[in-house]
Amino acid sequence: MNNHNISLIEKSLYDYLPSSDCKEKVLAQSMKYSLEAGGKRVRPSLVIEFAKLCRADEKKALPFACAVEMVHTYSLIHDDLPCMDDDDLRRGKPSNHKVYGEDIALLAGDALLTLAFEIMSSDETAALIGDKACRRGVNVLANYAGAGGMVGGQVIDLISENQSAPVEVLREMDYKKTACLIKASCELGCICANANESLISAASRYGECIGLAFQIVDDILDVTSSDEELGKPVGSDRQNSKSTYVSLLGVEKCRELVNELTNQAVNSLETFGEGAQELKELALRLAHRTK
Amino acid sequence: MNNHNISLIEKSLYDYLPSSDCKEKVLAQSMKYSLEAGGKRVRPSLVIEFAKLCRADEKKALPFACAVEMVHTYSLIHDDLPCMDDDDLRRGKPSNHKVYGEDIALLAGDALLTLAFEIMSSDETAALIGDKACRRGVNVLANYAGAGGMVGGQVIDLISENQSAPVEVLREMDYKKTACLIKASCELGCICANANESLISAASRYGECIGLAFQIVDDILDVTSSDEELGKPVGSDRQNSKSTYVSLLGVEKCRELVNELTNQAVNSLETFGEGAQELKELALRLAHRTK
Repeated sequence: MNNHNISLIEKSLYDYLPSSDCKEKVLAQSMKYSLEAGGKRVRPSLVIEFAKLCRADEKKALPFACAVEMVHTYSLIHDDLPCMDDDDLRRGKPSNHKVYGEDIALLAGDALLTLAFEIMSSDETAALIGDKACRRGVNVLANYAGAGGMVGGQVIDLISENQSAPVEVLREMDYKKTACLIKASCELGCICANANESLISAASRYGECIGLAFQIVDDILDVTSSDEELGKPVGSDRQNSKSTYVSLLGVEKCRELVNELTNQAVNSLETFGEGAQELKELALRLAHRTK
Repeated sequence: MNNHNISLIEKSLYDYLPSSDCKEKVLAQSMKYSLEAGGKRVRPSLVIEFAKLCRADEKKALPFACAVEMVHTYSLIHDDLPCMDDDDLRRGKPSNHKVYGEDIALLAGDALLTLAFEIMSSDETAALIGDKACRRGVNVLANYAGAGGMVGGQVIDLISENQSAPVEVLREMDYKKTACLIKASCELGCICANANESLISAASRYGECIGLAFQIVDDILDVTSSDEELGKPVGSDRQNSKSTYVSLLGVEKCRELVNELTNQAVNSLETFGEGAQELKELALRLAHRTK
């Protein structure tokens, strides 16, 4: 990712956190802990890049960018809880509930999800981008993050555990669990710029394609990478006897799929004319990443 | 509560639920299970009553009314989880996680919270009340439900467990944990009616007063009521050696406080002129309830 974007995002993220000068300061600390453990900041960077492509100042993109990262972070905190994936580590650090306890981790996730919508709908954000863009942004994020999107995808994942799912189920799960929030990020970048519908649709197609490709690359890396490169144990999907794109289609076919989706993503950038170089490179970089 | 309001609310609540005609239908079932176990529907009724008092059609109030009830329901589902209060029963029925498992219950809570914001920001809601009212509504609900409000109150509750808290801490906890969402409901009723700021402030004061009184009445009933009347074991707070208003101030002083808060609530209705009879009665009914 672009370092300028990352430092912009990280500064704003912490500015938006609730005060830790209160009785319940452990909540703010727990929220901050997981936001700080952030990875590549792919989603908020997409918001900023699409906003810039639609000729909006990056400042206008920051509230939506931070909101998306907060929703992503809440989903990781809840995902790691013992009643879900029961993961003790997240990006090499103890997961939130290992540090703060399950109760605080649960509430930190709830608070991050709520804060995302608070930021998107604030008077300050409305002064920057207008009431309608705020309202549409909230709707898009809620729609893709909720029962019909990310949360629905997590449920499909849960009910498909320990059974071999056909490729259509896998595609729907990956679409909802991973691609939806990436798709939302791309749409949000256009919405905060008050872009027209055809640009929003093009951004949406780009996001869906790179989101699906992202998950297939994950499945490929799970069999071709080493623990060290990946930063987490490889082969974990096979051990869980979970269906993956690779187990159903093989590595070669998966690489073809990734290339196809990446080409579709790059093509959908044509609607934006010049200036989409950064997003083109991002699609290629995500397709060819090794971790 | 007014039966007309309750049937309006319940019909709309189920209409807003995601389709159960999908792979992840258990999610919609779990969301519906807890919405159906609803109690008195105090919060959504407040939204409707304040909207009507501000001369808006009750139809305009339904999206915000349902959103508030969804946020309340999500908080109960998460509160009952083993890592929180670990309650097997909620209003005499098995709690969500006892029926659907902890993982689905957690996600049903997340999905209800997200759906609340989706409903408030939808194109349909915007067509009814305008973009600005949608945007402000989202902001008010997120603000009162998040780290600075309800979730923050739950954290204060957790960290005050098994220790005697002074009355100021108790007041802050009750304000955040209980009164904030009631206050939000009253403000939301005015906002969806596009009422002016002085009416919104008056509604907010009413909500804060009845919200604080509500919690004190709960504490009184915990020592004066029988299990049968209350529908849950009485004396549970004393067994947990938790501070309550009653343990700190005694029953008589608590009754005085409730009367004082109820009078303040009723007085703040004066700003609305005629027509606030229903809300006046509601404040009195909540103060004198026996369960």
